[in-house]
Amino acid sequence: MNRANDLSNSVIFPKGEKLPEEFSKNFVGQAWLQMLVMPGTEYNCPIGNVTFEPGCRNNWHKHAGGQILLVTGGRGWYQEEGKPAQELHPGDVVKIPANVKHWHGAAKDRWFVHLSVETNVQAGPAEWLEPLADEEYSKLI
Amino acid sequence: MNRANDLSNSVIFPKGEKLPEEFSKNFVGQAWLQMLVMPGTEYNCPIGNVTFEPGCRNNWHKHAGGQILLVTGGRGWYQEEGKPAQELHPGDVVKIPANVKHWHGAAKDRWFVHLSVETNVQAGPAEWLEPLADEEYSKLI
Repeated sequence: MNRANDLSNSVIFPKGEKLPEEFSKNFVGQAWLQMLVMPGTEYNCPIGNVTFEPGCRNNWHKHAGGQILLVTGGRGWYQEEGKPAQELHPGDVVKIPANVKHWHGAAKDRWFVHLSVETNVQAGPAEWLEPLADEEYSKLI
Repeated sequence: MNRANDLSNSVIFPKGEKLPEEFSKNFVGQAWLQMLVMPGTEYNCPIGNVTFEPGCRNNWHKHAGGQILLVTGGRGWYQEEGKPAQELHPGDVVKIPANVKHWHGAAKDRWFVHLSVETNVQAGPAEWLEPLADEEYSKLI
């Protein structure tokens, strides 16, 4: 990997720590999380900076209140169930409706960084599901 | 200004258009706005990318539901009424509680870019107040 692709220090916002077990069990590969706005505050709007190593992606999941992804670095993928995966680049914004089954993560050979904004938190937590099939991820270039 | 300080194309997210009159009347100097998540959607979480030219700042104002600023570029200031102004740099996160009178904007000689996340939108719109006194802004280096 050339240096231009090395986002191992994240982009703009702090990289934070390796995902805690409660989240990492729902990921393939390593990701890091720095919460910027914590859950349970008066803002009702948890915001985190998520840094994925190359090849890292999360399992299929749903957010009861929806989620916004703001891509700040690298190259990655977002897929909704039943639709083609969308390639993501810095400056892309993904609006994930409530209860839509999806996954997101890095391209095979590229770091990937996005801010995650959880919306309508009063609707409840995320529901984590099965991993993306390896053969589906391996088709993505 | 050297090229490293030239953020006239914004940072990562699109620069968008000059502020519409409804907002620009509450700013000193020129700013640009690209909405990334529109108001009035199911997300209840308007997000905008705001790019301030050097010296541009907004008037004192309050948000009925609070606001989060995520600083992506340049150098700027945030001040709450009755407190010293805080210098802002990329990676800084400002959590503005509901109904706290404040202003934000660029340093005199630097572009400044932040994402703005409006929280608890059901609480109502922002209340715009008087400009920051020029002699107060001119003290900030």
